[in-house]
Amino acid sequence: MRGRVYNMTMIKPQTLKGFRDFLPLEARKRQYVINALKKVFEQYGFEQLETPVLEYDEILTGKYGDEGEQLMYRFEDHGKRKVAMRYDQTVPLARVVAQYQNELAFPFKRYQIQPVWRAENTQKGRYREFLQCDIDTVGVDSPLADAEIIATALAGYKELGFKNFKILLNDRKVFENLPTHAIITIDKLKKIGKEGVVKELVNKNLFESETEALQMLQELLDRKPTERIMQIFEELEKLGVDQSFLEFSPTLARGLSYYTGMIFETETSDYPHGSLCSGGRYDELIGMFANKQIPAAGLAVGLDRTIEAMEALKLFPTDLSLSATKVLVTIFTKELKSNSLKLCSQLRANNINAEIYLGEIKEKNPLEKQLKYADQKNIPYIVIIGPNEAEKNIFLLKDMKKRTQNELSLADLLQTMQ
Amino acid sequence: MRGRVYNMTMIKPQTLKGFRDFLPLEARKRQYVINALKKVFEQYGFEQLETPVLEYDEILTGKYGDEGEQLMYRFEDHGKRKVAMRYDQTVPLARVVAQYQNELAFPFKRYQIQPVWRAENTQKGRYREFLQCDIDTVGVDSPLADAEIIATALAGYKELGFKNFKILLNDRKVFENLPTHAIITIDKLKKIGKEGVVKELVNKNLFESETEALQMLQELLDRKPTERIMQIFEELEKLGVDQSFLEFSPTLARGLSYYTGMIFETETSDYPHGSLCSGGRYDELIGMFANKQIPAAGLAVGLDRTIEAMEALKLFPTDLSLSATKVLVTIFTKELKSNSLKLCSQLRANNINAEIYLGEIKEKNPLEKQLKYADQKNIPYIVIIGPNEAEKNIFLLKDMKKRTQNELSLADLLQTMQ
Repeated sequence: MRGRVYNMTMIKPQTLKGFRDFLPLEARKRQYVINALKKVFEQYGFEQLETPVLEYDEILTGKYGDEGEQLMYRFEDHGKRKVAMRYDQTVPLARVVAQYQNELAFPFKRYQIQPVWRAENTQKGRYREFLQCDIDTVGVDSPLADAEIIATALAGYKELGFKNFKILLNDRKVFENLPTHAIITIDKLKKIGKEGVVKELVNKNLFESETEALQMLQELLDRKPTERIMQIFEELEKLGVDQSFLEFSPTLARGLSYYTGMIFETETSDYPHGSLCSGGRYDELIGMFANKQIPAAGLAVGLDRTIEAMEALKLFPTDLSLSATKVLVTIFTKELKSNSLKLCSQLRANNINAEIYLGEIKEKNPLEKQLKYADQKNIPYIVIIGPNEAEKNIFLLKDMKKRTQNELSLADLLQTMQ
Repeated sequence: MRGRVYNMTMIKPQTLKGFRDFLPLEARKRQYVINALKKVFEQYGFEQLETPVLEYDEILTGKYGDEGEQLMYRFEDHGKRKVAMRYDQTVPLARVVAQYQNELAFPFKRYQIQPVWRAENTQKGRYREFLQCDIDTVGVDSPLADAEIIATALAGYKELGFKNFKILLNDRKVFENLPTHAIITIDKLKKIGKEGVVKELVNKNLFESETEALQMLQELLDRKPTERIMQIFEELEKLGVDQSFLEFSPTLARGLSYYTGMIFETETSDYPHGSLCSGGRYDELIGMFANKQIPAAGLAVGLDRTIEAMEALKLFPTDLSLSATKVLVTIFTKELKSNSLKLCSQLRANNINAEIYLGEIKEKNPLEKQLKYADQKNIPYIVIIGPNEAEKNIFLLKDMKKRTQNELSLADLLQTMQ
């Protein structure tokens, strides 16, 4: 880094399309969601894993279909190695499982919360850099492992404050006798309705007549849960999950080429704009670098959409809109500055987030800029130590929201702030 | 992602040189340090900022000297835009300050904890992907702002458990009349000693004789703190920082071309392997995109070295070596499985991180694999619910470290675990 570069030719300060800065308020909200999810993930026995942003290209290539090949960020590094940026967290997990198979305890339950990069066409809610929050249980194919993934999803969204939250659940098995193209059409049921699905099935020449297509669709819709789904329901019940949170959804077909067993997504009537979290069992993928089959089940939280939903449903604590700084200790005069600095360190020593105003203090109306600063940063309290307060050894605490103020002793001030 | 790829040609599961996976134990330790630092940063009024991994190349280029130009990861994206990976957090901060100057409150105090990428020659403790932890105060040039950066550094390392910790402090001003090449040599004093410095100064033709060079060096070493340094010391005292933590170090010259005022690094006699954290005032850099001078001061924590030091000094809580899972609820028989599942959910509902064993339960010696799992993951407690315990409605709690066990009621178990 070199100094004195500020008078260079003007470069426009901007981010790349699909990439975002998170200023403090936004960063705080994201951190809140991440912390809540981490807490629940750890409650359920998942432990954190982190992998690098860059991988050997050969690790990632060929794993994400044609679309992935096109959207992946890849380049040659300084040593002419072909490298690629993390595109999801499942392939890195597969690599980790193979690379450290002798160090890891199996079943391996890990969570991973890291950004991924996809050169998508940007549109509302779709970014080129976004955070993935995944949990996966690797090395076991029991219905209990499936149930636990679902229970964790429910607990996570409960922790975030969601109500009327449901898991729609299906089993890859119900599609056993159907060609892939038919399943892709059936998966559109919610979007295009029964009639739309039937029409498309005939148009695609998958069925000879609408009657036949409708019959198949109706049979699918009338299907009872498979034995596996029943087992998962049973385990969930034993785990204390009420059946009312679960719904067998025989036309659900997310990530078709990927899942081998249960498939699920979430639904909340309060925010009917698509699934916030989805997952399933995929027994054929994790073993790719270990060259053997390794069963696995997991879920991915759609963080951006979850945050959108939380905003819409006002699920963020109102505190979050406030600065992380609880109190600004203002400086009244040059002479009284030491008093303010002393109080500020006392507050900090008591684990209270406190600031002292660092800008210039004008003699005339010294508080004006300080109040404006507290207001701009949304700091909820300020303390004033003027000559009177200093003399009486008290502190004037102003609540910036309620517009109230109180004279307090140090002990009372510390207690009020805690 | 496509399934059934595991029988492909074997690809070696490996990370790129200089890139690291963090398995749970390591991830936990890093998270511990990050959380402690975040806590202190927020106590001191710094708020989180996040910026994207990729920036327009023109934002980063020309800011890091020849070395930076060579080490930066850059490529063309899908839209033929020249892009570069984050190389530090200061240039992105400068961009943010210009881009959002009307939204941010000034002085802008932010922390940023994100990875950066440098294609360095790898060696012990030097990686190509590493986490930077920075705080910076932008928009004010007061000695108090400088003092607060130092106070935050001291509080951060205190929070991490460091003792005998010192800040070595200098002022760029002491080098005012010296050519850059001389300062670079002087900065090596600790490494090569007085004699070495003097020899190098003469060899570089910066001084005509060793006597002259030695005289200059001695004068430098005898310097009293500058007025600015005295002011910073004063503010630190008012902030409650004991002078014993501070030392004026007139030959300290980190990041010469970058800093314009105070320069500091840390020293701890307990771990004499270089500075863990350094920083200073750099008033000519942040304004580069705003096209005006914007004063700033900040610090960067060397996370990897700090973790190394903490390992060496055994500053990590012993708990961290344990799994995030507090207790494994074992399954005794198929019939008693519901009891174990029920207890597991009760523990989780009480915010206790609990696991149920998800692997296969053998009829003969059902606990063997479960105990091995708890051992491998370093889970500190297990609960056994056999026929006796189920009948008496009690739980057998085993402490895996102390090799002790206790029969407890549900209420007592929950209390013991909390």
